[in-house]
Amino acid sequence: MKQSLGARTLLYTHPVVVIGTYDRDGKPNVMTAAWAGICCSSPPCVAVSLQKPRYTYGNIMEKKAFTVNIPSEDYVGEADYFGMVSGKDTDKFAASGLTPVKGTFVNAPYVKQFPVVLECRLLKSFEIGVHTQFVGEILDVKVDEGVLSPDGRPDMARVRPFIYDSAKQEYYAIGRSIGKAFSIGRDLKG
Amino acid sequence: MKQSLGARTLLYTHPVVVIGTYDRDGKPNVMTAAWAGICCSSPPCVAVSLQKPRYTYGNIMEKKAFTVNIPSEDYVGEADYFGMVSGKDTDKFAASGLTPVKGTFVNAPYVKQFPVVLECRLLKSFEIGVHTQFVGEILDVKVDEGVLSPDGRPDMARVRPFIYDSAKQEYYAIGRSIGKAFSIGRDLKG
Repeated sequence: MKQSLGARTLLYTHPVVVIGTYDRDGKPNVMTAAWAGICCSSPPCVAVSLQKPRYTYGNIMEKKAFTVNIPSEDYVGEADYFGMVSGKDTDKFAASGLTPVKGTFVNAPYVKQFPVVLECRLLKSFEIGVHTQFVGEILDVKVDEGVLSPDGRPDMARVRPFIYDSAKQEYYAIGRSIGKAFSIGRDLKG
Repeated sequence: MKQSLGARTLLYTHPVVVIGTYDRDGKPNVMTAAWAGICCSSPPCVAVSLQKPRYTYGNIMEKKAFTVNIPSEDYVGEADYFGMVSGKDTDKFAASGLTPVKGTFVNAPYVKQFPVVLECRLLKSFEIGVHTQFVGEILDVKVDEGVLSPDGRPDMARVRPFIYDSAKQEYYAIGRSIGKAFSIGRDLKG
């Protein structure tokens, strides 16, 4: 039996991504977002929704660029912190001890210590209710060599990303593999 | 040291959602998508990107409605299958033995056996490269009573959603809790 919980933003699963930008003075900033996801395969694009009061909003509008940084489990505290304070009055890199590195493709900083980084140029922005959705064209994906498998592909168990549970406001690690895609459903194909 | 993997749609983490629609003859259909995410808090909205050849694309355009269904781990095979065949020539509900139920808020079917369901009316659609992004206003979230905690909130360990790893085309379960949001980062706030 199903129970109605009403109109709300409950989805499984929400990612945890950290958006890197420069402000007008060149100060690097980071903020954490969960309203995000891939939105196009070609060109490869990622969408991130932000509200106008966010410091990052103005930075993206000005620089037309941002990075999407994937924290590993080791940085759950930093990622949480990056969503709790504003870059308007805080230098979050300095406070956290993490290191900003200028992107090689776009005018935005990425987080050196995070295992996966997407460099994005602002392709489009859409107004949706109280949010602005920024669509970034992914110009490059950079990964730490240490998270690569021998086959050259990133290994989930080494990247160790985590998700956000909006129902209970909690972070969860990723667990075990439960099947190969485009394969485990083949039996039903008949 | 970071290594460039080029321009590609690698993100952590991708959700696995199943989109429910009716076709023009009223036949219920489901397809699996990973290019999806929440895109607005108010009104609550979810974005799903589809390509025009998909059967679901025409169904959403015609009915202006869809559901977003979250499969539990038990249904990883069915979810995989729903992404492998087209509703043009297959009755995926019949083939999988799952049960379509007409939404109470929108003209779209949801999957009875899946623990969490979002009923969405088409609010907007945006063209982004080869994809069309459908923005659905979430009119209701329905959950199985069995996944609720005593406090009335859905429990991750009972919903048991899973994610998609695009790097290795594999599905992963969710693991342990690693911290409370808006809390574990407080130490850094100083």
